[in-house]
Amino acid sequence: MAIDFQQDILAPVASDFAAMDKFINEGISSKVALVMAVSKHVIEAGGKRMRPIMCLLAAQACGETDLSKARKLAAVIEMLHTATLVHDDVVDESNLRRGRPTANATWNNQTAVLVGDFLIARSFDLLVDLDNMALLKEFSTGTCEIAEGEVLQLQAQHQPETTEETYLDIIFGKTSRLFQLATEGSAILAGTPEYREALKQYAGHFGNAFQIIDDILDYTSDKETLGKNIGDDLMEGKPTLPLIAALKNTSGADHEIIYKSIATGGLDDLEHVIQIVQNSGALDYSRMRAQEETQQAIDALSILPDSIARNALYHLAELALERIQ
Amino acid sequence: MAIDFQQDILAPVASDFAAMDKFINEGISSKVALVMAVSKHVIEAGGKRMRPIMCLLAAQACGETDLSKARKLAAVIEMLHTATLVHDDVVDESNLRRGRPTANATWNNQTAVLVGDFLIARSFDLLVDLDNMALLKEFSTGTCEIAEGEVLQLQAQHQPETTEETYLDIIFGKTSRLFQLATEGSAILAGTPEYREALKQYAGHFGNAFQIIDDILDYTSDKETLGKNIGDDLMEGKPTLPLIAALKNTSGADHEIIYKSIATGGLDDLEHVIQIVQNSGALDYSRMRAQEETQQAIDALSILPDSIARNALYHLAELALERIQ
Repeated sequence: MAIDFQQDILAPVASDFAAMDKFINEGISSKVALVMAVSKHVIEAGGKRMRPIMCLLAAQACGETDLSKARKLAAVIEMLHTATLVHDDVVDESNLRRGRPTANATWNNQTAVLVGDFLIARSFDLLVDLDNMALLKEFSTGTCEIAEGEVLQLQAQHQPETTEETYLDIIFGKTSRLFQLATEGSAILAGTPEYREALKQYAGHFGNAFQIIDDILDYTSDKETLGKNIGDDLMEGKPTLPLIAALKNTSGADHEIIYKSIATGGLDDLEHVIQIVQNSGALDYSRMRAQEETQQAIDALSILPDSIARNALYHLAELALERIQ
Repeated sequence: MAIDFQQDILAPVASDFAAMDKFINEGISSKVALVMAVSKHVIEAGGKRMRPIMCLLAAQACGETDLSKARKLAAVIEMLHTATLVHDDVVDESNLRRGRPTANATWNNQTAVLVGDFLIARSFDLLVDLDNMALLKEFSTGTCEIAEGEVLQLQAQHQPETTEETYLDIIFGKTSRLFQLATEGSAILAGTPEYREALKQYAGHFGNAFQIIDDILDYTSDKETLGKNIGDDLMEGKPTLPLIAALKNTSGADHEIIYKSIATGGLDDLEHVIQIVQNSGALDYSRMRAQEETQQAIDALSILPDSIARNALYHLAELALERIQ
C-alpha cells in the first residue's frame, strides 16, 4: 500500500509543524530590507520541509510530549538548510530551484552570498537561545563537516577517478549530516542521550539513501518530475554513483564515453551515457545501495520504543524509496 | 612622537600573539585537501592582525594574567575576519588583496564561497569549545549584524541619497562590530562584566574611526600605499563619507558630478571627483569625524584601571589616525 505523506508521516506532528513557521518568520526578521526580502523569498521556496518534520518526529519518538523546543530546533534546521541551498545555487550557477528563480538569479551572486551568511549566523543565534552546550557542539562540528562535504564535491567535479568511498563522503557531508543534526539534536534536547546514536544512524543512512535516489533520478526522471532534470549532474561533470558504477561495470568504448563525460561535463553524449548507465547495471546497483541504506536506517530505529512517531520515521524512509520504484 | 607598533602596542602581548598562530593553524586543519589549501592561503594573506591583538590587549587590560583563553578567542576573531574577507572578495570581484591573489582569483568563486562557509562554521566550533554561553550569544548576534551591515552596504551601492546615518550603520556592521566582539569577548571570558560596556564602546568607536580613515584613503592615498588604490570605492559606486560630505557641501555642477559618480560607478570622473572632495571640505569633515570617533574610543577606556595594556589600546587608536596625518 502506498504511503500517504499527510496521514502516515506528518499527522503526528502536524500542529507543531504549522507552528514552526512562526519561528522561521521571526528568525528571518531583519532591519535591513534586502535581507528580509531575500530571506523571505528563499524560505518560501522551500520544498516539503522533510528535515524539520524529521526533527519533530524524532523528538516525539524520544518521548517528548511538549515539542516547543523541538519546533525551534526544526526552524533552525530549515534555516540552515536554506542557507546551504542559497550558496549551492551560487556555486552551481543555478537559475531555478523547484521551478522558482533562485536568489542569485532574482538579485545577484553578491546578495545571495551575503544573505546566505546572514542565514547561517541567524541559525546559530536561534540555536544559542536553546541554551544547550552539547547541542551547540554537535551543530558547530556538523556545519564544518557540511561545508567540507560541499568542497569535497567541488574537488571531485570532473574527476572520473572518484571512488565510491569518496562519493559516500561527499553525500554524507552535503546531505546526510544535516539530517543527523535534525534527529540527534532532538534527542539531545529531549534529554534522552540513549537514543542519540540510533537516531543519528537512522538519519545518516536515510540521508545517504535520499541522495543516492536523487542521483539516480538524474538519469531516469522525465522532464515533468518536479525539481530535477535529466542530466543536471552530468552537465556539471559530477561523478555520482550511477556513473561510478557504470565505470566499474564497463570497458572499452562505453567506459571511455562515461570517463570523458565526467572529465569534460556537458550534455553532448547524454543519450549515450543514459543508455550505458541503464544497460551496464549501474542503475540496478545504485537502487540496491539505496535500498540497503534505507534498511539500515530502519534497523537503527529498533532500539527506540514503539510509537506512532517512530512508525512515521519508518514511513518517511520508505516514501523516499518510492521515488525510484 | 610617532607610535611604534612593536614597542607601544604589540609588546605587552607579543608572546601570546605568537602562540595564537598555533590555534589558527589547528583551526583550519581539515581532511579535505582543498579546504586546507584555500584556508592556509587566505589566513597567510592576513595583515597586521589588529583584531586579535586588540582582543589580547583587552584581556590583559581586564586584569587577566593567563591569556590562554584569550589566545583562542583571538584566533577565532581572526578566522571570522578572514571568512568575511573571502566572501567580500567574491562580492567585490576582487583579484588582489594586500598584493596577493584572492581565493576567488586563485581558485574560483565557488571554492571561495564554500571555504568561507567552512571558516565561519569552524570559528563557531572553536568558540563553542570556550564553553561560555554569554560569549556565544554575543558572537551569534554579532555575526548576524555583521552580515546585515554587508548587505546594507550592497543595498546602498549606487545610491547617492544614502545618509551619513546609513553610512554609519554600514561601517558599524561591516567593521566595528567585529572589533567589539574582540574586546567585549575578552571581558566576558575574563569574568569582568564591569568592563564589557567600556571595551565595547572603545572598539565600536575605534572601528568607526578605522573605517572612516580607510574611506578617506580611497581619495588621498598614492599608489604606493599598501592595500588600497585611489578610486576603489568610487569605481563600485560606494557612497562613503567623503562623497556624502561632498554632496552636502556642494551645489550645481560639482554636486551633479558627485551624484552621478555614485549612481553610475566607474572612474571616468575620478580626477574631478577627487578635486571636488578635497576643495569642498569633505575630507576635512571626514578627518574631523575620524578624530572624534578616536577620542570617544579613548575616553571610553577611562573606567579601566591604568595598565600597560590599556595604554597600548590608546596607542592603537592613535596609530590608526596617523594614516591620515
